[in-house]
Amino acid sequence: MADARLPSGSRASALTRELAAFAVSADIARLPAGVAAEAARAFLNWMGCALGGSGDPAVSMALACALDDGAHLQASVIGRRVRTSVGHAALLNCLSSTVLSFDDTHLATVTHPTGPVAAAIFAMAQKRPATGTDFIAALTVGMEIECRLSNLLLTAPARAEIGWFVTGISGPIGAAAALGRLLRFDEPTMVAALGLAANQASGFRANHGSMAAFLVPANAARNGVAAAQLAERGVTAMDHALEAPKGFVDVFGKGGEANVALEGLGSAFELLSNAYKPYPAGIVVHPATDACLDIAERLPRDADIASVRLRVHPLALDLCGRRHPTTPVEAQLSVFHWAAAALVQRSAGIAQLDPRCIDDPAVQALRERIVADADADLRRDEAHARVELTDGTVLDSHVPHARGSLDRPLTDAELDAKFRSQAGASLAAPVLEELLLACRDVARLPDVAARLGALIDS
Amino acid sequence: MADARLPSGSRASALTRELAAFAVSADIARLPAGVAAEAARAFLNWMGCALGGSGDPAVSMALACALDDGAHLQASVIGRRVRTSVGHAALLNCLSSTVLSFDDTHLATVTHPTGPVAAAIFAMAQKRPATGTDFIAALTVGMEIECRLSNLLLTAPARAEIGWFVTGISGPIGAAAALGRLLRFDEPTMVAALGLAANQASGFRANHGSMAAFLVPANAARNGVAAAQLAERGVTAMDHALEAPKGFVDVFGKGGEANVALEGLGSAFELLSNAYKPYPAGIVVHPATDACLDIAERLPRDADIASVRLRVHPLALDLCGRRHPTTPVEAQLSVFHWAAAALVQRSAGIAQLDPRCIDDPAVQALRERIVADADADLRRDEAHARVELTDGTVLDSHVPHARGSLDRPLTDAELDAKFRSQAGASLAAPVLEELLLACRDVARLPDVAARLGALIDS
Repeated sequence: MADARLPSGSRASALTRELAAFAVSADIARLPAGVAAEAARAFLNWMGCALGGSGDPAVSMALACALDDGAHLQASVIGRRVRTSVGHAALLNCLSSTVLSFDDTHLATVTHPTGPVAAAIFAMAQKRPATGTDFIAALTVGMEIECRLSNLLLTAPARAEIGWFVTGISGPIGAAAALGRLLRFDEPTMVAALGLAANQASGFRANHGSMAAFLVPANAARNGVAAAQLAERGVTAMDHALEAPKGFVDVFGKGGEANVALEGLGSAFELLSNAYKPYPAGIVVHPATDACLDIAERLPRDADIASVRLRVHPLALDLCGRRHPTTPVEAQLSVFHWAAAALVQRSAGIAQLDPRCIDDPAVQALRERIVADADADLRRDEAHARVELTDGTVLDSHVPHARGSLDRPLTDAELDAKFRSQAGASLAAPVLEELLLACRDVARLPDVAARLGALIDS
Repeated sequence: MADARLPSGSRASALTRELAAFAVSADIARLPAGVAAEAARAFLNWMGCALGGSGDPAVSMALACALDDGAHLQASVIGRRVRTSVGHAALLNCLSSTVLSFDDTHLATVTHPTGPVAAAIFAMAQKRPATGTDFIAALTVGMEIECRLSNLLLTAPARAEIGWFVTGISGPIGAAAALGRLLRFDEPTMVAALGLAANQASGFRANHGSMAAFLVPANAARNGVAAAQLAERGVTAMDHALEAPKGFVDVFGKGGEANVALEGLGSAFELLSNAYKPYPAGIVVHPATDACLDIAERLPRDADIASVRLRVHPLALDLCGRRHPTTPVEAQLSVFHWAAAALVQRSAGIAQLDPRCIDDPAVQALRERIVADADADLRRDEAHARVELTDGTVLDSHVPHARGSLDRPLTDAELDAKFRSQAGASLAAPVLEELLLACRDVARLPDVAARLGALIDS
């Protein structure tokens, strides 16, 4: 619906409409090199994360709520061999994919872009079949809009003070855009979907360290589904919901530059700046973990560690400075835990989130003694570690770019290995390998959800 | 879960816990005089509004979405004679209650407090039976927490610039608090419910004028249900989710005074400052509507109006200054429409939202010619109107306090009449009168939902 109270003259005054037009009409056959392939990598990583997290207690609790509500059996709950409604499945599968903090990261904005979008369209595609081409197109436009809106919010003058959990803010809009593309909305319907999704943007960071934090991306998926369902049925929103006074940008990023979301739209893709984690931990923990793993490989079998000194970007301590984690959720956010676990257990994977590692006396004792210095001259993906043994041996490691950073992205083989490490708990090996191949090849599937759903539910 | 990064020493540093303690343990038998009775009036008004709005196209669209999803048949969709899940019913019934803009208003904050709370607990009580005493206790603590959080947000220095739709911000928390009370949560579970609800707070005002605006309170009801369900199943939130850095107050009302929400908690009740609308229009439109109705009563039968001049509080034009409404949603927000409709049709009710009134040539012609002056010296609930006829007759009206304002509240008889005017479309007269009596007497029902549900679904 029209609203006359707007500034005029610039493209930014039509932010909602421009994004809707892109979502509706972006030509998947003419994407720049690598974009579709990266979308498929993002999807593979997401599916692995959803399988890996599907056994988490938070997922069990949320699944119990969904089963209490009941629903038509429309979409798979990944890793659980049950079906529920599209909305419930989108929430649950996004929750599974994020609950180990192993999901992807748009590093510039610390958005975790694939979860809300992929969970929404995968669930919907089980009800409303889609080809691989259409699925990848939907995933691409959804993630692109999500990351571009996150970029926009980052330009707000007050951004640094503010505690939005940005995946919850831009995520519902990305999910709704992707669904609208999948369901072939016309532009006015897409505009309504974006406006309805924007009005459900929510989430702040103070809940980090509890299960509530993982519900933020999960709710973003659910909210995107709700917005698209309502828009398809005819519920309206204002044409300028994103850019109007008292609209999305105004409340979540006052003074933010709307043009940041529009420049290069359709030719430059934020999806190419998306990173996949090698460790189920806060992204800022990764370079120090790399450094400690590097040293661990060189440690003598019976090494007796006298001291550990880390030098890290200040954010590693601001966001992940917990010294004494007691739960897996807290351990994900502890640079001390990952450094100690890497040195003691010489590994940094899902097993290092297990209470058997968190409460391991050797890990606990080493966590106590690690010294970590913040160094603002380091890049975010850079770290130094120095370990001194009681026999006087000193081992140093400098990680200029963490594994999984944009300068050192995970290879396809590493992504496959990550998938296998996560999917193994819930899928038998032959099914796992079939699913891995089908996800890699998602763009060429004639019916994405029929193929993947059969494997997941088997 | 605990978080060490907090200021200490004041009650405000335990905002979440203090509100949770109140919700869990407020003694319904010792409420100040009038509070329980006012809660029952709020519920009666809410039920009437839900019946009155239940035929709206937006409700039909949202109901179609719910039926697409499927659900156990746990809770009534008011006015529709179907059942769905608690979450879907909470959303739909709150939507019905707000879609005509006929719901109640906490005037100090322009929160519409009953919708999210009553819709959530009424739906839940159909699944998990509750006595009238427990139902009123839940409604009271939920609305109180909601309004007090709205008061708090209003103290933020940037409040005036910001476009939050506050019912969507404080509403989920009020709904979750009420549900936790209804379900007899212990204090830690209540803390989690409040934190999970806060993390779903959402909604801005730029969608006003479209159906999306009504989804904001409706989503608040749904989000409160989701938060309570998850908390009851064991999902955790941080103990200080409301007051922590990067928490609820920080992101929605930076610098807001947390103590505003706590002062007098349990002894002074915001519920007593809740107002019920006599007209299905933006609250700021009401005094001018009163003045025009007053003049209409004195108009000769064949009066030929030469000019209409209104003098209104500036907010009446800021919020409801639409000159040319074309839809019911827009007409709700047009002071020109209500003045013209009152003078031409000599009435101001649901019929005046009908396209037959909006498009009535006489109403349209008069809307064009009304002059409205903003006068900052007027109170919000005050207005002047002056009508001049072509024969030179001048009719004046000054409304010092609008009907339904705190200084001139609707009487019980007026609330009953409002209920009847809204319920008549979907209920036969005998059932309507039984339901009216049962709602008036809600505090004494042995099983609220069994009694009311049977009447609603009949």
